[in-house]
Formats: sequence, C-alpha cells, structure tokens
Amino acid sequence: MAQILYKYYLFILLSILLIHSFVTFAHSKRSIDETKPCKRIVLYYHDILLNDTNIDNATSATVANHTQLGNFKHGMLVVFDDPMTKDNTLSPPVARAQGFYFYDSKNEYNAWYSYTLIFNSSEHKGTINIMGADLMGDETRDLSVVGGTGDFFMTRGIATFRTDGIPNAFYFRVEMDIKLYECY
Amino acid sequence: MAQILYKYYLFILLSILLIHSFVTFAHSKRSIDETKPCKRIVLYYHDILLNDTNIDNATSATVANHTQLGNFKHGMLVVFDDPMTKDNTLSPPVARAQGFYFYDSKNEYNAWYSYTLIFNSSEHKGTINIMGADLMGDETRDLSVVGGTGDFFMTRGIATFRTDGIPNAFYFRVEMDIKLYECY
Amino acid sequence: MAQILYKYYLFILLSILLIHSFVTFAHSKRSIDETKPCKRIVLYYHDILLNDTNIDNATSATVANHTQLGNFKHGMLVVFDDPMTKDNTLSPPVARAQGFYFYDSKNEYNAWYSYTLIFNSSEHKGTINIMGADLMGDETRDLSVVGGTGDFFMTRGIATFRTDGIPNAFYFRVEMDIKLYECY
Repeated sequence: MAQILYKYYLFILLSILLIHSFVTFAHSKRSIDETKPCKRIVLYYHDILLNDTNIDNATSATVANHTQLGNFKHGMLVVFDDPMTKDNTLSPPVARAQGFYFYDSKNEYNAWYSYTLIFNSSEHKGTINIMGADLMGDETRDLSVVGGTGDFFMTRGIATFRTDGIPNAFYFRVEMDIKLYECY
Repeated sequence: MAQILYKYYLFILLSILLIHSFVTFAHSKRSIDETKPCKRIVLYYHDILLNDTNIDNATSATVANHTQLGNFKHGMLVVFDDPMTKDNTLSPPVARAQGFYFYDSKNEYNAWYSYTLIFNSSEHKGTINIMGADLMGDETRDLSVVGGTGDFFMTRGIATFRTDGIPNAFYFRVEMDIKLYECY
Repeated sequence: MAQILYKYYLFILLSILLIHSFVTFAHSKRSIDETKPCKRIVLYYHDILLNDTNIDNATSATVANHTQLGNFKHGMLVVFDDPMTKDNTLSPPVARAQGFYFYDSKNEYNAWYSYTLIFNSSEHKGTINIMGADLMGDETRDLSVVGGTGDFFMTRGIATFRTDGIPNAFYFRVEMDIKLYECY
C-alpha cells in the first residue's frame, strides 16, 4: 500500500514538473513557423503621383520636395490614399492604402513607408498597420505588420514588397504579400 | 491493487494530454476577448493649431501645407505636443500626446496619425505608442497601440477615436479610448 | 482501498486545477522580466546633418523647416540614412538607421522618431523597426521596438536612447540600447 502511494506521489510530481517546463517554454521562446502564416493576403499597390496633367487619376501627391543630399530624391515626402487591387491592373480596388513614404538615401533609391491598409468589403472589414524600410534595389524587401483592427484585431506579421512592372516618374506598382502570424 | 494502478496511470496520461492540448492551444491561437482589455484609459485629446493670434495657447503647428490633390487638405502635415485630459474641457492635462498627423484623401476628410502618449504623474509613468488611419467620417475609428514603455512596458491594443464637440479650423477634440490587451 | 482511491482523485483534481491556473496566467498576463531580454544590441547612432560645407560626410538633411511655435525647432523634420557603429567613433558601420525625426515641443527640446535599423553583415541580416518619443531632457528615454524581419523576425522590445558626447547644430550621437523581449 505504502509503495503504491509513494509511486503515485512521484508521478504527480513528475507530471507537474513536465507541465511547468511546457509552460516555461511557452513563455521564453514561442515558436512561429515563417512558412505558415495564420492568414495571407496578396495585393497590388498602385501609386499614381499628382503632376500637371493627371489630377483626375492621381491618388498621391508630393508634400515636401527632395533635399540636396545626393541624386536619389532624398527627403521627397509623398502622402497617398492609393488603391489596392487583387491583380496587377487597375481593377476595382479591394482595399485602400493610406499613409506616406519618403526617399531617404544619398547613394541609391531607398524609401521608407508607414501606412494603413483599409478593408471595407464583404470579405474583410478592418485595418492593417505597416511600417518599415523599402530597400528598392532588392528583389523583395520585408516590412513589419505592427498591428490591426476589426477582422485583423491585434494582428502582427510581415509585408513583403516586390516591384511589379516598370515604374515611371508618376506611376509605380508594388506587389504586397501580407503574411500574418498572430491571428485572434 | 493492479486495477487501481491501471486506473491511476490512465488518469495521469489523460491529465498530461489535457495539459498538452491547453498549451498547444495557447501557442497556435491565443484567444483575446475584445470586450475585456487588461487595462483601459479614456482621455481627451485637444489639438490647438497655431494661427496668427493664438501663439500663447497653441500646441501644434502646420509643418507642410496641403497639396493640390482635392479639396480636403490632402498632404497638410501637423506636428503636435497636445494635452490629454480626463474630461472634455481643457482641465490640467494627465498626459501629453507628441507626434504628427496629416490629411491623406482626395475625396473626403481622412487623417493619419502616429504619436506617443507620455504619462508622468503619480498614477502612471511611461509611454504608449499609437499609429493608424483616422477615417474622420466614421463615428468611431480604431487605431493600433503598437508598443509601450515604463508602466506600459511592451503593451499592445486598440485606440478608438471619437470626435467630441464641433471642430473649427484651429481647434478640435477627440475622445481616445485606449484598450490594452497585453499587459506585463 | 477506497481511501487511496479518494486521495488519488483529489490529487489529480488538484494538479489539473494547478495546471489550469498556470495556463490561464500565461494567457492573461504573460510575465517578461525587463532585466532579461532574449537579445541585446548596443549601438551608436551618428546624425550628420547637411549644411553648406559637409555634403561629402552628411547622412541626413532637413526636409521641412521649423515652425513659429516656440524656440525649440518645433516642426523641423529630418530624414536620415545614418551609420550605426559598435563604438562611439565613426568606425565602419555595422548597420544603417533609415527614417525620420522631428522636433515637436514648444517649451523644450523634444524629438519624435520612427525608423528602421538595417543589418546586412555576417553577424546579422534583417531589420528592426522602432518608434517613439525622444524626451531629450531625460538622461535615458525608452522607445518601442514594434517589429522586425530576417534574423529579427517578429521581434518586439525597447530601445533606450542616451545622448553621447556634446551635440552641435550639425552632429549628434545617441547610444541606442536595443533590448528584445520576443525572439522567434
């Protein structure tokens, strides 16, 4: 009888230790698999910059001109309310992107973005907030999804940019591959 | 005796499985109840924009003028260090809001904010960082709380804006309902 | 026999309750020890602001001039692509800081930052995104690390600023103590 009791205490003790270690693990280093987002949305961003002739179509405009630092538009600041589409044509938008970018480098084209994706369709309602560097020379560049609201309540993740098509001075297009790793 | 032992192993096994499933659940999809923030702070934001006559009271000023895109101040950029009060009068502030907003839309009044709430009182010491779109036409709009320091170390959540009172060209007031869902 | 069985059920029950409380605790209020970041990087930020004579060395430039609100450069907006070094001299940079700051206060020097640290060395590849208020009068001030990519995938934490050396109108240096509390 005493032997059973002894064994029994031992097992309880072991099971508690085991659980404790599980929970501790969960604290210190939660594991997320980069290849398995809990949600993924791929959209195309169209930036149509205001000039003298395109007021009807333009969706962004220059707020501050570039500085004298280098020849890559350093300091040029653009505020946008740009359409986001499912394919890479100017089809009816499924979301808006509201925010700003500026060029920040002396020696190459580098931009920096902070903006909100706004969804208001039967598919999604809510916003996704994104910020980070757009190292335009790289084929793909990762920015941070730092928060969300509505259907995207409290989300976090990565937004991967890829330039799509050949940009000109007043239009460019970026594929934005939004991978969310925290879904609630 | 053997029968008891058998039952006993079974229960241990079941309890471990149960625990495992709890912990796994905690990993893949932590659940947060939107109606139950771990902390909630409701404050009023007062923006008093500098003009020719209000230098003594002004707490914000226009850094870049609006662009030619539409008639809703697109591109107008304001930097502020605004008081935050507990009620909707200009009572002694309990926090400051430092940051910027700009208008970003061609077709309606839409703004975009990024700023820090700074607390330095006996009640709270620390900062809360917020960013997101302010779709001014909606009765309430949600922005993201993306981080915090001090008493708000590592926090995340939602800041709900609601226009309070009737704005004029140089003063407006917003109720900010800050709901934090990650408290450490 | 019955007595052992009774005790045995009781212990199982207690252990399940205990576990449940652990897991619940993990949900509602995960504990992070501020003194134990999972990663820590201390770097020096060098801001060399463009003037008439330093075009070769400058790494930042003024995009919008200060406003008329007070005498502390309120509204002055600077875009930078600044070197980050391991020591407080202009040694070969181990990272770049791309982003912007502006001064926001009427009554003292206060700045506000949002930027990306870009690592591209054998030691680290990836980015860290940071935003928050720089209350320049305080000896140290905390900003939020709101996201990361690459080696810093999904990270969060605190960036502590400390002014290093005596700034002049066109150069200042800040020690940035980056403490990450979420590592994946």
